[in-house]
Amino acid sequence: MSDIRETGLTLDPKYDAAGLITAVVTHAETDEVLMVAHMNAQALALTRDTGIGHFWSRSRQSLWKKGESSGNTLNVQEIRIDCDQDAVWLRVLPAGPVCHTGARSCFYRRVEKDGLVRLS
Amino acid sequence: MSDIRETGLTLDPKYDAAGLITAVVTHAETDEVLMVAHMNAQALALTRDTGIGHFWSRSRQSLWKKGESSGNTLNVQEIRIDCDQDAVWLRVLPAGPVCHTGARSCFYRRVEKDGLVRLS
Repeated sequence: MSDIRETGLTLDPKYDAAGLITAVVTHAETDEVLMVAHMNAQALALTRDTGIGHFWSRSRQSLWKKGESSGNTLNVQEIRIDCDQDAVWLRVLPAGPVCHTGARSCFYRRVEKDGLVRLS
Repeated sequence: MSDIRETGLTLDPKYDAAGLITAVVTHAETDEVLMVAHMNAQALALTRDTGIGHFWSRSRQSLWKKGESSGNTLNVQEIRIDCDQDAVWLRVLPAGPVCHTGARSCFYRRVEKDGLVRLS
């Protein structure tokens, strides 16, 4: 299936029933995946307008400027959108560790046969 | 908030109300983001057991072996899971273009001030 959303050059995000799209955040220099979060239309607009990553917190049901309390903001270098416009990819320069656990990336564990392995 | 799901070494995916987690797929050699999809427990188990990427198609409401019809399967080199275990990162060697449009990656457009720009 191909439609204007896939082939066109108009930003037309396909929000889900909760009004959200998925946001994948990678480091702009290495493309390491740092976190996965969600955005509503307001979070996407604020991210585009300010160049700082904003998201929608599903657990708190509120707009969330990443790093507002920790200082670990995300300086967004590039935003890409996928074929059906239900996911964005943010390439960022992070001001500090991205994960609330203090890890550089939220993806600090590998899935192996017998369970998880913590990476450095 | 820190809990056993974040600090432990037990795989314990936090599926959403629809029974899904988010899956980010990157190229194992470059970490370019190729696609974003979803997995239910069966898709994750099949991916772990076979080393080939399986997902849950929300539009078709069915299990989906990526590349089953196109031949463009995903050879999974590594699976990582994030802090709250509601997203996985698959590092893969793709057998061909990942996007159904024929593009190498589903993220073939950049979001700019005035709209989208198609990348090569």
